[in-house]
Amino acid sequence: MSVFVSWEEMAVRKPRDGAEGRIVHGDSMSLAVWNFDAQTDLPRHAHPHEQITHVIAGEIDLTVGDETRRLSAGMSALIPGGVEHEVHTHTPATVVDAFHPVREDLR
Amino acid sequence: MSVFVSWEEMAVRKPRDGAEGRIVHGDSMSLAVWNFDAQTDLPRHAHPHEQITHVIAGEIDLTVGDETRRLSAGMSALIPGGVEHEVHTHTPATVVDAFHPVREDLR
Repeated sequence: MSVFVSWEEMAVRKPRDGAEGRIVHGDSMSLAVWNFDAQTDLPRHAHPHEQITHVIAGEIDLTVGDETRRLSAGMSALIPGGVEHEVHTHTPATVVDAFHPVREDLR
Repeated sequence: MSVFVSWEEMAVRKPRDGAEGRIVHGDSMSLAVWNFDAQTDLPRHAHPHEQITHVIAGEIDLTVGDETRRLSAGMSALIPGGVEHEVHTHTPATVVDAFHPVREDLR
C-alpha cells in the first residue's frame, strides 16, 4: 500500500446498523474513523490492543470498565488492552480510534 | 491520568504561528489533534516514531520523503519511523496524528 491512502481505499467496516468506519493499517498501529448515527450502541467488547479514542464531532457515552463518561467533541479516552468498553451515541458522532498493535482482526 | 481526558487537560503544542495542537499519551501511543491556519508550513522533520496522519477537515500538501500529495478531508498517510516529512496547508485544516511509540519528546 502506498504511503498515501484515500478514503475510498480504506477498508469499510459496518459492525452494526448506525455505525460505519474506515480503517487504515500501518506497521505498528491501525487508525479508524467512525461515523455513528444518533442512538447507536456498540456493545461491550474488549481486544488486546491499546486504544486511544478521540471524539471529532457529536456526543457519546463511553464506558471503560465500569466507568461511564459523556464525551463531546475534543475529548479523548485511553483504553488499555484487554479492558471492556462500550459506546452509546446521543447525537450523530465522528470518532477516531488509534490502536496498537495493528488490528489484524480488522484487515 | 484518568482514562478520560478532556480537551482542556491535553497538553497544548504551538510549534509555530498558525499551528496549534493538543496531544494525549497512552502507554504505547500518542494521539495529536492539530488545527492549522491556511498557508502554514511545518518544516521538514523526522522522528523515530511511526506516524499515521488523517485529515479531518481542510486541505494540506503532505510531503513524505520525496513524494508530495494533496490530502483533503478523509485522506490518510502512513509515515514510517525516521522518514522526513513536511506540511503546507492550503486552507484551515484539522489533522489527527497517531504515533507509536509514545512521543516522550512532546510530553
